[in-house]
Amino acid sequence: MKFISYQNRDGELRLGVLKDEHTVVDVHEASEGALPDNILSFLENSEKNMKLLQEMNPADKGIYSMEEVLVKAPVPRPNSIRDFYAFEEHVKTARRNRGLDVVPEWYEMPVFYFSNHLAVKGDGEAIQRPANCSWLDYELEIACVIGKEGRNISRENAEEFIFGYCIMNDWSARDLQREEMKVGLGPAKGKDFATSIGPYIVTKDELEPYRKDGRYDLKMTAKVNGQELSSGNFKSVYYTFAEMIERASADVTLYPGEVIGSGTVGTGCILELGTDVHRWLEPGDTVELEITGLGKLSNKIKEGGF
Amino acid sequence: MKFISYQNRDGELRLGVLKDEHTVVDVHEASEGALPDNILSFLENSEKNMKLLQEMNPADKGIYSMEEVLVKAPVPRPNSIRDFYAFEEHVKTARRNRGLDVVPEWYEMPVFYFSNHLAVKGDGEAIQRPANCSWLDYELEIACVIGKEGRNISRENAEEFIFGYCIMNDWSARDLQREEMKVGLGPAKGKDFATSIGPYIVTKDELEPYRKDGRYDLKMTAKVNGQELSSGNFKSVYYTFAEMIERASADVTLYPGEVIGSGTVGTGCILELGTDVHRWLEPGDTVELEITGLGKLSNKIKEGGF
Repeated sequence: MKFISYQNRDGELRLGVLKDEHTVVDVHEASEGALPDNILSFLENSEKNMKLLQEMNPADKGIYSMEEVLVKAPVPRPNSIRDFYAFEEHVKTARRNRGLDVVPEWYEMPVFYFSNHLAVKGDGEAIQRPANCSWLDYELEIACVIGKEGRNISRENAEEFIFGYCIMNDWSARDLQREEMKVGLGPAKGKDFATSIGPYIVTKDELEPYRKDGRYDLKMTAKVNGQELSSGNFKSVYYTFAEMIERASADVTLYPGEVIGSGTVGTGCILELGTDVHRWLEPGDTVELEITGLGKLSNKIKEGGF
Repeated sequence: MKFISYQNRDGELRLGVLKDEHTVVDVHEASEGALPDNILSFLENSEKNMKLLQEMNPADKGIYSMEEVLVKAPVPRPNSIRDFYAFEEHVKTARRNRGLDVVPEWYEMPVFYFSNHLAVKGDGEAIQRPANCSWLDYELEIACVIGKEGRNISRENAEEFIFGYCIMNDWSARDLQREEMKVGLGPAKGKDFATSIGPYIVTKDELEPYRKDGRYDLKMTAKVNGQELSSGNFKSVYYTFAEMIERASADVTLYPGEVIGSGTVGTGCILELGTDVHRWLEPGDTVELEITGLGKLSNKIKEGGF
């Protein structure tokens, strides 16, 4: 199933499941109120709610044309965002560009930082370039959404805590990031202005056909103004989401509605490609990320301001 | 006024205002439902709610003895935690201990990282030492709580976005932090297992008597098992909360219920003092932070586990 969050014609934020490309089912309305009207409440009891939803399939109420609704991020306000650093090629290239080797610790454990979960955008929403940023970049990532509370989750059991997957763009102000990280913390201001996720959450069962040896064979591409710049595959990830969840949940409770990003796939940002391949992003540019099975996430840059 | 969150005798989480040391007023009950029963909703309309609360003073309903209630963190689940690095002495000493100078960028802008706002503890709650941590440390900090939404807030206007202040202990697993930060991100696992705040939020008007030249003259101390280890003053802070708010809100919307930590005051952690002054913390230890006007925040360490 594919879950979206959207604004209906009355301006209300609602939770929907795609019936097909052109049609969405309002989950709350179709279930006559038995199911929640927002994704966070749905995830709180995701197993029970998924059962209810499957039983009422096909829905005969609450059916709307996608043309009537305004799509938002599938989790408009995640409970948190952890962003990992799990693709070896990205780390190697990013470090090499700064004249550095990959540190041995990178191979010992998956590391992450917390980003700003209160600045999430969805497919089609504009991204403001920060006022003092000249080096605006995208990052092509995949994210998973937690659907069950847990603590000290082993990698072997991690799968059951994943509700589904979506595309993630970890927008980055490279000049701000470079300055602040010299102080030895972060990134924070380099990343806090926007993270886009979407267009929908695909439940994990839908990705089973792409699974081989514990990795998913999903092509990942990024285009800027129609030109393909990045091309990678999720199967090249060094640390799986199961390993990231094990790390994140060590001595920490994970809650439904938290989002975990994979970090950038190899070639997945301008920082890695170099500005001889493409200049930094500017207002008016459109960045389109696409991942097999997860759709397309498209955002246009606009000038910052109030 | 001093705001606490607490569990009442029926096990419900409630919002209270201290009448005196021994007595709390249930804000929702005393206002006959006109005021919210939780701090996040109260902060959403803090100006209007504060007026209402002042008008009904003194309350004649909803009055309980502190002995009947169980104190929780004053914001049990903040909308986020940003932790800054705003005291020069702490930065100097922490860097010197690693054989490093303070980088010039530290003097150019206040920097921060996001911590885990879903792992917040209050006064009296136990802190679990992470399973693989042998170098457990406290950090003596002051925090402010945002009471009004804003974006691109100037330091001149920042004051009106602050609702109040509290003590903060940014618990740190120094061994985990050291390892992960070699990879160039974070801290995350070094800090994500617990942050304690409390015992209450003191509204900003109560700190006015301590204000001189834009700084607050507030003594800050930390004791471990009754022995005073740290002694500093909030007036030594290099960046004020106004400057931190300007930085945090640049191109980012700040929401009511977000928490901003100052970073550690000089001498405010074992990392800075050295383990010849005191060994790392161990299960059974009690850490008591005290700040003029903000009370005492006390937590006992227990062994980690499930």
